[in-house]
Amino acid sequence: MTTEQDAPGQIHGLGREPKLTDDRVTMAHGSGGKAAAALIKEVFMPAFSNPASIDLPDAATLQVETGRIAYTTDSYVVQPIRFPGASIGELAINGTVNDLAVTGARPQWLTAGFILEEGFAIDELRRIVEDMRVAAEKAGIQIVAGDTKVVPRGAADSIFINTSGIGVVPSQRTLGASRLEFGDRILISGPIASHGMAVMIARGNLAFTATIESDSAPVNGLVEAIYDAINPESVKWMRDATRGGVATVMNELTKASGKGVLLDEEAFTIEPQVQGACDMLGIDPLYVANEGCFIAVVSGEVAETALAALHDAGASQASIVGEVVRNPQGLVAVRNAFGGTRLVDMLVTDPLPRIC
Amino acid sequence: MTTEQDAPGQIHGLGREPKLTDDRVTMAHGSGGKAAAALIKEVFMPAFSNPASIDLPDAATLQVETGRIAYTTDSYVVQPIRFPGASIGELAINGTVNDLAVTGARPQWLTAGFILEEGFAIDELRRIVEDMRVAAEKAGIQIVAGDTKVVPRGAADSIFINTSGIGVVPSQRTLGASRLEFGDRILISGPIASHGMAVMIARGNLAFTATIESDSAPVNGLVEAIYDAINPESVKWMRDATRGGVATVMNELTKASGKGVLLDEEAFTIEPQVQGACDMLGIDPLYVANEGCFIAVVSGEVAETALAALHDAGASQASIVGEVVRNPQGLVAVRNAFGGTRLVDMLVTDPLPRIC
Repeated sequence: MTTEQDAPGQIHGLGREPKLTDDRVTMAHGSGGKAAAALIKEVFMPAFSNPASIDLPDAATLQVETGRIAYTTDSYVVQPIRFPGASIGELAINGTVNDLAVTGARPQWLTAGFILEEGFAIDELRRIVEDMRVAAEKAGIQIVAGDTKVVPRGAADSIFINTSGIGVVPSQRTLGASRLEFGDRILISGPIASHGMAVMIARGNLAFTATIESDSAPVNGLVEAIYDAINPESVKWMRDATRGGVATVMNELTKASGKGVLLDEEAFTIEPQVQGACDMLGIDPLYVANEGCFIAVVSGEVAETALAALHDAGASQASIVGEVVRNPQGLVAVRNAFGGTRLVDMLVTDPLPRIC
Repeated sequence: MTTEQDAPGQIHGLGREPKLTDDRVTMAHGSGGKAAAALIKEVFMPAFSNPASIDLPDAATLQVETGRIAYTTDSYVVQPIRFPGASIGELAINGTVNDLAVTGARPQWLTAGFILEEGFAIDELRRIVEDMRVAAEKAGIQIVAGDTKVVPRGAADSIFINTSGIGVVPSQRTLGASRLEFGDRILISGPIASHGMAVMIARGNLAFTATIESDSAPVNGLVEAIYDAINPESVKWMRDATRGGVATVMNELTKASGKGVLLDEEAFTIEPQVQGACDMLGIDPLYVANEGCFIAVVSGEVAETALAALHDAGASQASIVGEVVRNPQGLVAVRNAFGGTRLVDMLVTDPLPRIC
């Protein structure tokens, strides 16, 4: 607290620093006034404690070197906002970190924009912001600017978070669907379908319960492990398998490249309780969103080296799940344990809405 | 539309490009599936037509030179989403352009994150996106990445837009409250209070009507005009007077600098109908949000030159409105036409909620 009210020529209380006394978010917290300043100072600033975030509500000024940067954005509207394994706050950091990492970038800076519903509990907001702080620290990135808006009760569903992110792309790294060659191998960094099923079950309106944890995690360390292990030119394409899951991401790749992808269903790891939940709901785990899992397409001759690098970096369940093939041209096929093959198209819609 | 269904080895319809046939936004448009791809392709891509936005849903890769960048974010939740002079789309571009410009940066790239309520009209979305395209073109910036989420009906109020932005800061430009000196002059680029009052009146629940247009506009051209006219070191501090208006921004400056600000009430331009609306509502125009108006603090000896530069650049109603003073220390005082002086504190809350 300042003590300007005691300084000569000043009036008691004028210019005094605001203090956060509310339990709930009010419209005042989204205004340009003292209430908003108090929320920023007491809730956001302690968590975003890097020097660059001193100017949190405004633009941050950052030093860059000549080269390429990656730049992305994502909004998070997941419901419920807290579920086994993560919260909307952690997701908002990891999701943007991962979008940057799979372009080959080293994530550096993030912005965070909050839309809060009037009446949202300040304590819950503190927990979410703390989740963001921890996730940012774990991923090695800095939250450098932010914004808060409040809308009247009923005009938003508790809390929405947008993050944008900037990463620096080392010069040797060039990814693109056009770089694919027949015989390239497809790696996945971990088990699939956990995130989507964790959120579905946390909603509590299914006829069964199960303990499924989201796989929410930053993947930038794993991306670096691959690049450390093999020639950067051998890494062709990467993508985190979020909304729409592995099947959607693979369809985006075949569409963009014009080449085919053949996946080996048995090569994917699916936790038994996740597989069970998918079976009961009649959902193909290949379409379920992940939040800590990415696909990398690498040259065939270095695929085992890249896989070993993922294992050494802690992704013990990483596996080689497929190959870039000539046929089916421009499509995704999945071979099952019995040798049968089915085509996997992009769905019109995600079977699990609002999971991120 | 592709014609892969006619290619050998392919099955009719599989891998086919999606088409947007809906009049209203559905949950499917927020998924990772074909419906989302159709929305991106048909609504967003035509408007964001620069080459970098080909990868709209993912991270953009951009070339930077060694130096400083400015980085910011803002969410827009204004209601109504369209009002005289602008829409939420135009606001979302200009607001972020202006946040960058007042750090001395040249705005370069933006991201756009949409949160849509299920049932939102696709035609209205097209108009908003078109507003964004036009505003981006006018400000000379590129929208390089985007994201769309859909929430069920009732979980958001029609549309929220987050934008983040990156600008390049030329090396000679260093702004900060610590650079203020007594005798520095305070310039404003145009009439005040129009935006907040335009939105309030557009809501249609006041006992009177008036035609007031928002001042929504990019200010980066005006910022460049000042820098072209005077030594960059003579520009000390700039800020766009958005939420909380001129009074809030000036209080932020006095708090950060420890110096006083004396404003001349008569030097501000307020359109008569804006002044009339403020009078009827009992709102001080100094606290009303602007969206195309900024404050610049410059050395006293170049203030008239800077003002002339603003006039020449089209800001015909720009004026010198005040001075950095020793007393009242750390506070904002306003002198009225009769020579009386009052202190203007930061309010606890904005009198006009949800105007951006």
